[in-house]
Amino acid sequence: MSERDPSAIYIGRKPVMNYVLAVVTQLNQGGFDSCTLKARGRSISTAVDVAEIVRQRFMKDIVELEKIEIGSEELDESDGRTRSVSTIEITLKKK
Amino acid sequence: MSERDPSAIYIGRKPVMNYVLAVVTQLNQGGFDSCTLKARGRSISTAVDVAEIVRQRFMKDIVELEKIEIGSEELDESDGRTRSVSTIEITLKKK
Repeated sequence: MSERDPSAIYIGRKPVMNYVLAVVTQLNQGGFDSCTLKARGRSISTAVDVAEIVRQRFMKDIVELEKIEIGSEELDESDGRTRSVSTIEITLKKK
Repeated sequence: MSERDPSAIYIGRKPVMNYVLAVVTQLNQGGFDSCTLKARGRSISTAVDVAEIVRQRFMKDIVELEKIEIGSEELDESDGRTRSVSTIEITLKKK
């Protein structure tokens, strides 16, 4: 998740519908055929919610799930230690 | 997630390591070559944590990620309405 991908949407702690709107806008107007949702830690379940709401409700019959990847990342803590955090990347693409 | 799958482990609110131990035990002693982690809602991120800890730490070089599926389920609320909840299924299998 360290490289900035222009077609990526980073999922954090905002309300789910903010991200749904960002995905729909990107796929409708952004000149992209696909969109990758990236999240880590507790935001992983929000990323799955966003993907499901987009593909089952707002862009049903328009987008499909291309791939899902999971991984781990090392985060530096303020005390100098590192902690491992899980990540997910969900790619939706236009049919 | 409604059908009970004997090789499935249902992820809930217990500590992550309880589920890690269940997966490792099932793959080592349970007579199964694969194990499917099933979770919904906020437990989705715990399911990803369990999969990552098993495949990157406890059973590295022994298991691999077979597939990841996401979906939605309708839950009946106590007030008679239904609510949609996201689900994930992560299958790990022995190499």
